[in-house]
Amino acid sequence: MIDELRAIVGDAYALTGADLAGWSQDWTGTYQFNPLAVVRPANTGEVAQIVKWANRTGTAIVPVSGNTGLSGGTRAEGALMLSLDRMNAIREVRPESRIAIVEAGVILSNLHDAAEAEDLIFPLTFGAKGSAMIGGCLSTNAGGSNVLRYGNTRDLVLGIEAVLPNGEVMEIMSELHKDNSGYNLKHLLIGAEGTLGIITAAVLKLHPKPRAYATAMVAVPTLPDALVLLNRLQQETGGAVEAFEYMPRKHVEVYCQIKPDAREPFEDPQDVNILVEVGATAPRDCTPGPDGQVPVAAYLEQVLAGMFEEGMLLDAVVAQNEAQRRGMWERREAAAEIAMSRRPVVVNDIAVPLDKVAPFLERMETVLPKVDPGAEPIIVSHLGDGNVHYTVWPASQDPQVHDAIMEAVEDEVLAMGGSFSAEHGIGTSKLPSMRRRKNPVALQAMKAIKAALDPNGILNPGKLLP
Amino acid sequence: MIDELRAIVGDAYALTGADLAGWSQDWTGTYQFNPLAVVRPANTGEVAQIVKWANRTGTAIVPVSGNTGLSGGTRAEGALMLSLDRMNAIREVRPESRIAIVEAGVILSNLHDAAEAEDLIFPLTFGAKGSAMIGGCLSTNAGGSNVLRYGNTRDLVLGIEAVLPNGEVMEIMSELHKDNSGYNLKHLLIGAEGTLGIITAAVLKLHPKPRAYATAMVAVPTLPDALVLLNRLQQETGGAVEAFEYMPRKHVEVYCQIKPDAREPFEDPQDVNILVEVGATAPRDCTPGPDGQVPVAAYLEQVLAGMFEEGMLLDAVVAQNEAQRRGMWERREAAAEIAMSRRPVVVNDIAVPLDKVAPFLERMETVLPKVDPGAEPIIVSHLGDGNVHYTVWPASQDPQVHDAIMEAVEDEVLAMGGSFSAEHGIGTSKLPSMRRRKNPVALQAMKAIKAALDPNGILNPGKLLP
Repeated sequence: MIDELRAIVGDAYALTGADLAGWSQDWTGTYQFNPLAVVRPANTGEVAQIVKWANRTGTAIVPVSGNTGLSGGTRAEGALMLSLDRMNAIREVRPESRIAIVEAGVILSNLHDAAEAEDLIFPLTFGAKGSAMIGGCLSTNAGGSNVLRYGNTRDLVLGIEAVLPNGEVMEIMSELHKDNSGYNLKHLLIGAEGTLGIITAAVLKLHPKPRAYATAMVAVPTLPDALVLLNRLQQETGGAVEAFEYMPRKHVEVYCQIKPDAREPFEDPQDVNILVEVGATAPRDCTPGPDGQVPVAAYLEQVLAGMFEEGMLLDAVVAQNEAQRRGMWERREAAAEIAMSRRPVVVNDIAVPLDKVAPFLERMETVLPKVDPGAEPIIVSHLGDGNVHYTVWPASQDPQVHDAIMEAVEDEVLAMGGSFSAEHGIGTSKLPSMRRRKNPVALQAMKAIKAALDPNGILNPGKLLP
Repeated sequence: MIDELRAIVGDAYALTGADLAGWSQDWTGTYQFNPLAVVRPANTGEVAQIVKWANRTGTAIVPVSGNTGLSGGTRAEGALMLSLDRMNAIREVRPESRIAIVEAGVILSNLHDAAEAEDLIFPLTFGAKGSAMIGGCLSTNAGGSNVLRYGNTRDLVLGIEAVLPNGEVMEIMSELHKDNSGYNLKHLLIGAEGTLGIITAAVLKLHPKPRAYATAMVAVPTLPDALVLLNRLQQETGGAVEAFEYMPRKHVEVYCQIKPDAREPFEDPQDVNILVEVGATAPRDCTPGPDGQVPVAAYLEQVLAGMFEEGMLLDAVVAQNEAQRRGMWERREAAAEIAMSRRPVVVNDIAVPLDKVAPFLERMETVLPKVDPGAEPIIVSHLGDGNVHYTVWPASQDPQVHDAIMEAVEDEVLAMGGSFSAEHGIGTSKLPSMRRRKNPVALQAMKAIKAALDPNGILNPGKLLP
């Protein structure tokens, strides 16, 4: 059986036995598993051959790229892992069309660099950017810190190439901004977590690189004050806020504990710490004035000054250079590391309407101790789009209590019109939520689509759909 | 049979016999048909009952809202037409969340008015806005003139409610900007032309209303010069160009013929007429300077002046007030009326990469006369997104020649990496293109999805999929 795989990818790229050591857990370490084997195809043709082989032999395939997911989407007990890491070519960056054509194994930060070399950006970004790969970003419709301005991953994708569950290659690598020719299979595969096809390449949108940023750490008394700051900034800049990230005091404390050279953002520790960034591309916003100040920084300072006068601002630090800006971002991007620094851990990635973030967190202060006295929440939030990473360090070691925590979170979220899964996806860990909470008519339709496209249940079985 | 429908919607809203007079053709008049009956349900529950009835009786349903489509998507020979026109409530406009919750029968311009009353806009707009309805906009993923800035219809939709082919109501009326909980059924139904479900309501994104517009008619020597204008304006304004529309001389001529009180845009007729509009929301762009001029108008004039000096601009008229702006838009929005003012007519709605618009049109000057000597193209283009309405008035009356024209257009479009259907959809008229040109693997997957969700073939059969 393995011999057939070796014949497809070459001996060196079909791993078994002791060679599987590095392939038997996800990044979080929550899921440990024994894959049947790992194959590392070099191109789309090899991926297609492997999928056809899997249909013939009835073998489950778990596609994996950067393996940085937080929901156990790459758990591969007894399955064949198909790694896209060798398909790592940036085929083209075409600045005049503002597109990049890339393979699934391209590391996100490598694409960042390639775009920046052309004075463009690929805006998708998050903590794991140095190891996450494009295939996984698309398959999970990754979110991150710039969704407020540029949308989720799916908003940055023009076309895809994918191997469908029957082993056929679907080449819909459109570069077009308008294409209404049948069902939108691109959007169906994006976010399908590898259960409907293996995305092997994509045409991605690039955006002009902001020529100036204004970045600040701001402390406000309450979360509603933070929303006032956000709205004023959006109004002042015409919607140029790129990121608006909330870090509670505890996030900052743990960051300083696990990073010995880390610094507090303010002299006095604060409860509501906001990282705000405004980007500007137009000359009128980027060209320094007679005082040397860039206009975009002036807009930010003006709004901050106004709020300070009104007593709605406790402290603020504006980044004076790129190093200070980087430092602010590192504090935020350590979030996954912070969350995973203690075990056990219950990861909740939820979204609610913006004005419900504060009521949700308030409710949880009452609810959580009832479910697990002594449990500690370790929270961080993409506040600008209502996405809260409500991670919990439970006091109890009992998995049933952990599930009860998740269920309590779901109760509050759904009562507020929210979603139990904002950007991390379902994978393995959110299957109970999906079973309990997803609209049953929608769930039925999803199952019908899965059965129609993957009748043998080859691709990432047991994920996403309960 | 009809009695059962009467029992669902009430006697007055199940039409048969002579009452069908107004329901037996599409807006273009290309398709004439005899529906079995027309039902006009009052709410989603009634829609669901009708679809269940159709499954029991094996009756085909053709959903219809504004009936302004250009591809024959509402052809209903022997089928039950289900009109959404009575479901016309704007349930809510929530300015603080920038959303509108509307039913499928809401007329697009009524939603425009409701949004503007809150100082917001629903950016989707096109000529038929006074009769097109939201259900049809979503089902066809309508494009229009503001895609460049705000995206296609699907980019403006947060959640939907739909009746699936089995008669179940799928309520995924999310207001969230992040929601990764399973396959994206919203995007699957948007653009599915009523073949996978009947969209009955939606949560739509609203945008801040630009406080100032700068709108101009510009004549440039060539289409590549127009792209220089577009790029410079985007750079100068940080991407604030809302519309960039190309009207060849012939469009203007026919407009003046069919509208007796119409005026030429320039003193001397020009070949390459561009309608350009820039919108601004930020105070710095909207607040008039000491000279009374709004900054956004100054940016436009500065770019135009630069190009005039370089000899890349033949003439330009900047709208001085809202009436002049309206006049410029009316000329553009008459495009469908202009195209349909002569019969027969072959409608081609294609998209190519931006820099391929000029080569495409040039190639067609050679190709078209070979297929049908004497055929006249009547062209208009959303140049900013590469979408060309390459309508042809054929000399021949032979439908086979008309199809040959379509096929010749497809040849050129596909050779340039384009799509044979940009924003009008497939409906009936583009089924031959879909059969000939759509990626066969994608087409197979679409058919599998259709069969899985609509095993009895109830919803809009014979449309979209060949």
